Formats: sequence, C-alpha cells, structure tokens
Amino acid sequence: MKSSEGNPLTTIQRQSFDILKSRASSSHTLDSLHFSSDTPQQKVSVAYLGPRGTYTHQAAIECFQSSAQHLAVNTIADIFDSVKHKDATFGLAPVENSTNGSVAITLDLFRDQDELYIWNETYLRVSHCLLGTSDTGKVKRLYSHPQASIWVYYTNGKAFGQCELWLSKYLPGVNRINTNSTSQAAQAAELDPEGASISSMICADIYNLRVLAMRIQDSDDNTTRFFVISKSPNYETEEAITLMNLPQQKNFLRKTILRFTPNPMKQMAVSKCLLILTQFRVLSVIIRPSLKKDWHYVYFAELEGELSEENLRDMELLCVDIRVLGSFWSRFTI
Amino acid sequence: MKSSEGNPLTTIQRQSFDILKSRASSSHTLDSLHFSSDTPQQKVSVAYLGPRGTYTHQAAIECFQSSAQHLAVNTIADIFDSVKHKDATFGLAPVENSTNGSVAITLDLFRDQDELYIWNETYLRVSHCLLGTSDTGKVKRLYSHPQASIWVYYTNGKAFGQCELWLSKYLPGVNRINTNSTSQAAQAAELDPEGASISSMICADIYNLRVLAMRIQDSDDNTTRFFVISKSPNYETEEAITLMNLPQQKNFLRKTILRFTPNPMKQMAVSKCLLILTQFRVLSVIIRPSLKKDWHYVYFAELEGELSEENLRDMELLCVDIRVLGSFWSRFTI
Repeated sequence: MKSSEGNPLTTIQRQSFDILKSRASSSHTLDSLHFSSDTPQQKVSVAYLGPRGTYTHQAAIECFQSSAQHLAVNTIADIFDSVKHKDATFGLAPVENSTNGSVAITLDLFRDQDELYIWNETYLRVSHCLLGTSDTGKVKRLYSHPQASIWVYYTNGKAFGQCELWLSKYLPGVNRINTNSTSQAAQAAELDPEGASISSMICADIYNLRVLAMRIQDSDDNTTRFFVISKSPNYETEEAITLMNLPQQKNFLRKTILRFTPNPMKQMAVSKCLLILTQFRVLSVIIRPSLKKDWHYVYFAELEGELSEENLRDMELLCVDIRVLGSFWSRFTI
Repeated sequence: MKSSEGNPLTTIQRQSFDILKSRASSSHTLDSLHFSSDTPQQKVSVAYLGPRGTYTHQAAIECFQSSAQHLAVNTIADIFDSVKHKDATFGLAPVENSTNGSVAITLDLFRDQDELYIWNETYLRVSHCLLGTSDTGKVKRLYSHPQASIWVYYTNGKAFGQCELWLSKYLPGVNRINTNSTSQAAQAAELDPEGASISSMICADIYNLRVLAMRIQDSDDNTTRFFVISKSPNYETEEAITLMNLPQQKNFLRKTILRFTPNPMKQMAVSKCLLILTQFRVLSVIIRPSLKKDWHYVYFAELEGELSEENLRDMELLCVDIRVLGSFWSRFTI
C-alpha cells in the first residue's frame, strides 16, 4: 500500500499512526527516567538501540506497552550490557532482516556470553516516512541516513535507493543531504523550514514534524526481527506478559534456540549434532566463526519444540559448548 | 611475527616480498590487456575486485601465476558478470573471513544465478603494511581506509583499530587521513613526501613506495577465503591447473558445495534435507534469505566428499531448487 499524492493517510494508517503517536508520547517521558522498581508500573524497562526515534525505538514501543520504560543505548553491545547489569529488565536486539539476513553482531554477542537468554521475539515492518514542517511541494532539502535502516553493516541498499521511485515522482531534483542516523535527519528537518527527512513515524512526534507521506519505500518486504533478551529464561511474570501482550500457548509456535560448538577434534561432530536436531522441525541453522580455530564455527539452531534432557546430553558429548538460549511461544507461525 | 623497529624484514619476509613484487610487476603489464586466447600464455584471465593493489588483487597474484591476466573490476557482482560474459576465464570472489564470517553479497550472487560454478578456492592471510617514500620517523600524515579490508559491509573493526598497537608505538600523534580504499591510501602516500599509507604489500610496487614495515596489524588471525568461479565446473585443463598450482588428489580434501532451497510447503523439508547431508562430514551450513517468502532460506552446505545421484534425487523431492555449485580438491584440510 503506497501513499498517493498530498499525504492521503488511509483510515487504517491514520489509526495506526495515532496509536503509535500516543505510545511515543508516553515513552517520551519515560525515556528520560532511570529504571527503578519502587512502583509497580515502573517494574519493566526495555533497552533499545538509540537515539530516540530509531526503528528499534519504534519496535520497543510497538512490542511493549507505554507503561514500560524505554532506555536508549548507543550500541547493540550496550543493549546486552544494560540487561546484564540490570539497568534494564529486557533488551531488544535486532537479529535478522527479511531481505538482508542475520545480524552478525548480535549473534556474536550471543556467542560470547553465558548470562543472557532469549526471552521472546518481536517483528517490525520497516516503513520510511517523509517528515517535515511544511508541505511536500515546498521541500527544497531532503535529509536522510544513506542507509536508512539499522542494517548499516549489512545492507547494500541505501535510503535514497530504497525510496527512489517515490522520490523521483514527488521530489525530483531536491537536494539530498546525508545524516548519521534517521533521527538526526529528523532533527535537521525540524530546524529547516524548507527541509524534510526520511525517518521512522515516531520521529514526527519526537521532533515536532508533520507526516508528509507514509510508506514511501520502493518495497514493503523489509521486516526486522528482534530478540527480547533477559537475565532469566523464566521471566514470565504476569506483568511482563501483559506488558508485552505475549501470545498464549494455543495457536502459537513453541520455538527453541540452541547454541552449540561442535568439538573440532571429533571428525563427524557437526553431522552427528545435526542428526539429533533433524528429529525436530528445523527452522534455521546459522553459523558464526568460533574464533577458537579458523573455519570452525558456533552453530545457532532454531527448532520447533523443545529438546529433551537426553537430546542435550547426547549433544554435550559431541560439543565443546552447548546452551539453550531460549524456549518461548512465538507470535510467528510458518 | 611482528616487524620490529626500523623496517627489519626477516630473510623469509624479504624473499616472500621479492616473489610478490616480481608477480605484481608481471600482472602490472597484463592488467591493462584485454583477455584474448590468441597465444597460449594469454589463455587464462582472472577477474578480481579492484582497483589494482587491493588485497583481492594480491590474492589473484598469489593464487595464479604471473602469466595469467588479472582484470580489475569494481564490484563483486562485476566479478560474476565478467566470468558470465567470458571477459575473464575465472573470477576471485571473497566468500568468508576467519574473524568476520561469510560475505553475504557473494552468497546472494550465488543464490541468484545458475550459470557459474565454484571451481576451487584460495586463502589469503591479510597483512597490513606501512608504505611511504621516506623513513618511518619522518612520517607526518597517515593515509588509510577506515576499515582497511574488503569486509566493508561486515566488519566492526577499523584499519586504525586493527593496527592500533603498532601505530601507538611507532607513529604516536601522527595525523590520520581517511581514504576510500587501501589503494587510494597508497596513491596519496606516493604524492606526499611526509606521508605513509596502510596498504597491501603489492601497492609498494604499483605506487613506487617503500615498505617501511610489514604485518603491522594487532592480530594475525585474519584470513580471507575466496572462491575461484568459472563458467564450467570441469574447467580443469592442464594449463589452468598448472597456472593455479592446483593441489593433487592425494593428501587433499575433496569438497562439495551444494545450494538448496527446501520447499516451504513441506513441513519437515529442512530437517529431511539435513538428514541426508549428515551421512557426510558437514564442514559448514550457511543460510541466506530466499527472498521468495519471509523467514525462508536458501541453504549452502559444504561437505567432505561427493553426493550420489540418489542423494540428489532424494533432496530434489524436498526442494524447490537444488544445485551442486562445485566439487573440487581443496588445499585446505581440517
């Protein structure tokens, strides 16, 4: 669904925008607060990749209710650290994009630590908006991150490329200015009466901008998947479940994510580990360098169901490391 | 092995440098020629990721003898196109780094084409050199690509970070200037009597620079693996084998690389495919988004040995696509 001329938000888009706007306003206030467990409504906090207004911020708002606190941090490693040090109850770490594939940095952080778990997951459909203070027809300068997404390490695509069709139709010849983030683009647009930015929708509220157009990207097939990480795999308190509007058991998929490092001294260890996993429906297998031996890998397997104690014991004999990162009911079904 | 003060190349380093230098000189001339099969010594050409002097250029020189022609192209996609359109006999495509993992772009190109094969593979240990026209003590400006490697889409590390220990010891306080490539850094150093660059060793010859120090990176654990791609999986002419100094059968590893896309309509297709592969020693399993359905993948499996016709027929029933990308004798043994 594309926006047509003159910012004609459909009723559904309008409603969805209003909901997000109200959530962004709430988080707005809470963002500046430090996590504290003094009062019940402050019990859950979520660390996300800042600055405020990023797509990860939007995912945090969509995933958790506005009564959760949102804590902006600078790097994906900081998300892990915030949860480790209990500055935040949960962290939202991007793990995969439907077009660009897995996020190596997040996987490497899961490879290198033994304290955190994958508590659940959430999905965000990335949607670029044109934000400004005036009308589309008056825009003379366009601010945008050259790769307007969090996938800076991965993507080949660029923001301008991503929105090329729309921009060539509605803003041909407009001067394009690179910024360091989609949030910084919005900040620049706020100060420039003839400027507009390509940013997430929540930036409109944060930076006092109007949504001049929604979903201006060429393709709608760009969804980002995040892991909700926590100190404990069993942090399924009623409050957290309500806050995150977690799926109920029925009609959903029970997923298990397993990390294992086959023993390089055992010739068929990889094959034997995979053989055990093939009893389950395998959803994905991802490898990252183990860094212990060249061309030797840590495996991340995602399965339907849960491994038995016996499965895990059998694999332990073949591996130098094995850890269930999480088992949870996912909203996602294949 | 680190260089100590005052550019003291060891005998082995000196010899290795001289060999590379003579090869670079040869390729130097051949680089400017177009591929032609008129004379026997011009029969084999290799497309690499340019510009001249990159680490991929060095891999091409190390992998093929100097009598092969080296063709610089601009992108990894261009490497594939050069071989497809027969501008080059072979292409050298980076596929994996021992620290940063697989190269998504190369895998995606293998996902999206059915004309090319993996003919063999080669490995390059990335080694940063300090190049300049004067002595280390006189260097006032240092030119370097901020991520002095071909892994610009992947790496978190930076060239300066990679060489930080050496630089803080021998060039503290020297002004650092970013360039777009390690070759451009060498070009800048050539024009600046008080400048030096962080580049590949072959840049010394190409840009008339002295090697002021070798192996200045903090860690030596940085090896890049390349696939040698060709129009035919059987391009094992005696000349090509001699040119590339290909391994003989004995003492080497027979590798097969298989691409397959499990049928999303068949619930256990992934598990059943993996089950067939577990008969072999699995060396790695890599996934990339299939782009046909969200969270559905193309699998790349690397095995020891070769699949039988029966194996392939069994997998065909479970997949919407299956293709043996290559079977070859690899220098590499695990």
